[in-house]
Amino acid sequence: MAEPDGPDSEGTVPGGRYSVAFPKRWWYPACPSSTLRSKPVAITLMDAPVVLYRDATGFPRALVDRCPHRNVPLSAGRVHPSGTIECGYHGWRFDGAGSCVAVPGLLGKDAAASPTRNVPAYATTERDGFVWIWPEQGSEPTGEPFALPAFDAAPSKVGEVVFAYDLDCTMHAALENALDVPHTAFLHGGIFRSGEQHDITAVRRDLNDGVEVEYLGEPVAFGPIKTLPGGARTFDHWDRFFLPCVAQVEYRVAPWVRIVNTILHLPLSPFRTRAWFVVRFSSPLPAKAMRPIVLARGRGILKQDADFLALQTENARRFGGERYTSTELDLLGNGIWRLLRRAERAERAGTPPADEPSSESGTVTFRA
Amino acid sequence: MAEPDGPDSEGTVPGGRYSVAFPKRWWYPACPSSTLRSKPVAITLMDAPVVLYRDATGFPRALVDRCPHRNVPLSAGRVHPSGTIECGYHGWRFDGAGSCVAVPGLLGKDAAASPTRNVPAYATTERDGFVWIWPEQGSEPTGEPFALPAFDAAPSKVGEVVFAYDLDCTMHAALENALDVPHTAFLHGGIFRSGEQHDITAVRRDLNDGVEVEYLGEPVAFGPIKTLPGGARTFDHWDRFFLPCVAQVEYRVAPWVRIVNTILHLPLSPFRTRAWFVVRFSSPLPAKAMRPIVLARGRGILKQDADFLALQTENARRFGGERYTSTELDLLGNGIWRLLRRAERAERAGTPPADEPSSESGTVTFRA
Amino acid sequence: MAEPDGPDSEGTVPGGRYSVAFPKRWWYPACPSSTLRSKPVAITLMDAPVVLYRDATGFPRALVDRCPHRNVPLSAGRVHPSGTIECGYHGWRFDGAGSCVAVPGLLGKDAAASPTRNVPAYATTERDGFVWIWPEQGSEPTGEPFALPAFDAAPSKVGEVVFAYDLDCTMHAALENALDVPHTAFLHGGIFRSGEQHDITAVRRDLNDGVEVEYLGEPVAFGPIKTLPGGARTFDHWDRFFLPCVAQVEYRVAPWVRIVNTILHLPLSPFRTRAWFVVRFSSPLPAKAMRPIVLARGRGILKQDADFLALQTENARRFGGERYTSTELDLLGNGIWRLLRRAERAERAGTPPADEPSSESGTVTFRA
Repeated sequence: MAEPDGPDSEGTVPGGRYSVAFPKRWWYPACPSSTLRSKPVAITLMDAPVVLYRDATGFPRALVDRCPHRNVPLSAGRVHPSGTIECGYHGWRFDGAGSCVAVPGLLGKDAAASPTRNVPAYATTERDGFVWIWPEQGSEPTGEPFALPAFDAAPSKVGEVVFAYDLDCTMHAALENALDVPHTAFLHGGIFRSGEQHDITAVRRDLNDGVEVEYLGEPVAFGPIKTLPGGARTFDHWDRFFLPCVAQVEYRVAPWVRIVNTILHLPLSPFRTRAWFVVRFSSPLPAKAMRPIVLARGRGILKQDADFLALQTENARRFGGERYTSTELDLLGNGIWRLLRRAERAERAGTPPADEPSSESGTVTFRA
Repeated sequence: MAEPDGPDSEGTVPGGRYSVAFPKRWWYPACPSSTLRSKPVAITLMDAPVVLYRDATGFPRALVDRCPHRNVPLSAGRVHPSGTIECGYHGWRFDGAGSCVAVPGLLGKDAAASPTRNVPAYATTERDGFVWIWPEQGSEPTGEPFALPAFDAAPSKVGEVVFAYDLDCTMHAALENALDVPHTAFLHGGIFRSGEQHDITAVRRDLNDGVEVEYLGEPVAFGPIKTLPGGARTFDHWDRFFLPCVAQVEYRVAPWVRIVNTILHLPLSPFRTRAWFVVRFSSPLPAKAMRPIVLARGRGILKQDADFLALQTENARRFGGERYTSTELDLLGNGIWRLLRRAERAERAGTPPADEPSSESGTVTFRA
Repeated sequence: MAEPDGPDSEGTVPGGRYSVAFPKRWWYPACPSSTLRSKPVAITLMDAPVVLYRDATGFPRALVDRCPHRNVPLSAGRVHPSGTIECGYHGWRFDGAGSCVAVPGLLGKDAAASPTRNVPAYATTERDGFVWIWPEQGSEPTGEPFALPAFDAAPSKVGEVVFAYDLDCTMHAALENALDVPHTAFLHGGIFRSGEQHDITAVRRDLNDGVEVEYLGEPVAFGPIKTLPGGARTFDHWDRFFLPCVAQVEYRVAPWVRIVNTILHLPLSPFRTRAWFVVRFSSPLPAKAMRPIVLARGRGILKQDADFLALQTENARRFGGERYTSTELDLLGNGIWRLLRRAERAERAGTPPADEPSSESGTVTFRA
């Protein structure tokens, strides 16, 4: 396996080279379903202001967050009882496709309708507790949003914890961090690390629109849980990336414990990324008892990561761009970057992403 | 009457199209007379820092707010007992024409005088309770500042209320907002709107250096006062713009009530506009009783407008420029823009503004 | 003596002319020795982020403040017990020359060593209670840092006060301000100035890599001390600049009193300058009694200066650049600028600074 090189030179942010790539013909998480209720919700998607709301049928809608009349954000208005979204300044209203359906004061039947008064709309869908958005206006969405993992254990033993964080970094840096093992051993040492060190072998494999690393021989004490039933000594552990925005970390000690942390990323802007951590787990303990433990540990780790990701971003900007060097321990960062860039290039060229192998397969042994 | 188009494409702010036009050979309000006392007052005029002060005779003076020596703002100094303005750093002093008259320490009679030490001055005048300033240095002011309206009712029945607000928007957006009826019916609905709707006819006319709209058939309940003596059912109502910076709204129910709200604008910078609301009124009630009512209503409305104007500005900038669409209900915004642009172009060409008709005359009927 | 002209037109900050010059082949103060202990210290040097720390021998080290791996600042890490500096994210470690000596997890002897993993280092030295840094990487330092003045009075009568301030201005403006007499008479009038005025003669002389002004006939009451033993009526007073960053003000009333205020400047960035005021003094009074008086006066004066320097900077930037005019009372500002520019130009040309006379010698008489 060749030594991974640094991100290539085609980052898209002016003023320096940054690992910013935004493939646009993919589903991205917009918000959890439960947070989209009777009020409009404002987000930015790759720096573009977007307003989310539910129409009269409860279906989630997404429009460019600008009234065509005097440009105030539609998210400063409200959802009208008719299920249309109403601008707060002059009361213009728009349906879920962005068509203007009311201009208060204007006389004449259908007087409101005019192509110059329409707001561009984004395709949306809802799945697994999230509203998803398709960033490219005017293109037909293909495929389904990423499916969260299913568990087959008894319901009382299966739990879920979801928490969110806005990270001051590129989506690429967030993805790499989520799947990076060496910083876990070091930065989160106080939480994770045992006194002893072990040689661990990592096997990297291409996935369909993604890449996976499996760790062999990883001692239990290295992971988030230090004692296991039955005296098991090693975990099964996989780290996975799926285009365009999903990191997934799975731990198993068959048949007792399974933890899958699926991290869904929304690129708010080049250097700000919203992450939802959806942790699903099953264990011999009741899920109810596990939830507070998982939540507390997850939040503690996340805070440390968020601080360093912000420092990384700020410093790269102080120096006018990223200048990374990598070792063979950087198992996924460069592969993620190549997949993101490849997807972006294919969209620009108007072709589907090539299904070529990433040349990322192979094994690495390291010590942790 | 043709459908008004959006602001044309010659906005002067780099990085996008914005309705920013600053005609410079006109009087602008600098500050209320009563606020210019013994201390220098700093403003910006079209982004240029200006210091205002009163000389030994009490006459208001305006200089570029920069000491020619080491560039500190003169407004950080004081008015010297001699009536000159004194820099706070080294004590250099300047007369009302900006000539340097003292450099502490420098020996020799008239040693201070030197053309390289002079500060450019702006022409000023005082009228109707305001200090006015002429933005173009070196050109001879022509004409008088805008005259506030006179009332002929008994003095005890005539009142005045003045309040100020710094708006986060272009001067054009502030002027349009001040004279826009449809948003009044919608945004200020809780204050203004009755349950019933009526057809109202608007008659638009060119004025000398301005434009006016008269509203016919406007029901009382639509305006700021809901009950009128004598059971009158309709207001007389005019909205007026006068170059370069005055909006005026007049309501009358002859012979009982007259309210004239004259709004004087100072363009601090492209996206920040200071507005003084000078409300004069006469009614059967004593002016003293009316003042707190007028003030409370005015301030409540203004706060709502200020919030939306700030949202409008911020959103236009997030999208890299304005992209407005208009209907025939946008009665004055586009005419104001054309007058501002025409004045600015005439100054650049070195010719007086052409006295061509604005093609804005005509009638529109709408419902409110 | 020719009238000094303003700073020439080669200021190096884009977007306007500013007195910004950063000669790079000179020693600059990095921090007081006493503030560099067990934790890394972050500074910026001419806008470049630098981390300072002490190695295993206690020697001060300075590296570019960026880990080559993922670019987080090394100053967010710690000094490892081995005396190397350790990045806080993945634990990479670097020696005092910036060579990578550890990558946790990487297998194989000397696996960490790689030219792509090294951090550029700055030369450092320690003298007179300060750590000094040489801004040009890769060039061999020449000469010694500026030597603080020695006093030969009895130790109990000799005192030192050091205080620091971050000034919002160019290093040039800070240097000029520190050595400018006229503003002292005016701005600090409440502290310094007597009622009476006197003619004072200033004699300006070239120094080796610097310039000096001696004041003749300066009355005691003008300076910081109003009563002197023995009824002395005049001070001896010198103001001095030494390349690249030292201002020095010396007062003497032989043989009783001597005060030397040496101000060491660190150009953090074009418009932010850290200044250490090292005041050494001897007097008939015990040094212990003098210290609080010197400290209180020094801080009071400094606060006034800092406020005006910030106003000067902000206003120059509002106007898009400096536009200074000078008189013969501006005894040192322009000479300092010429020396800074000459040093910078010589470095660019690759030649040693020319030892030409500055044509600054001569006398000026003024009143204060």
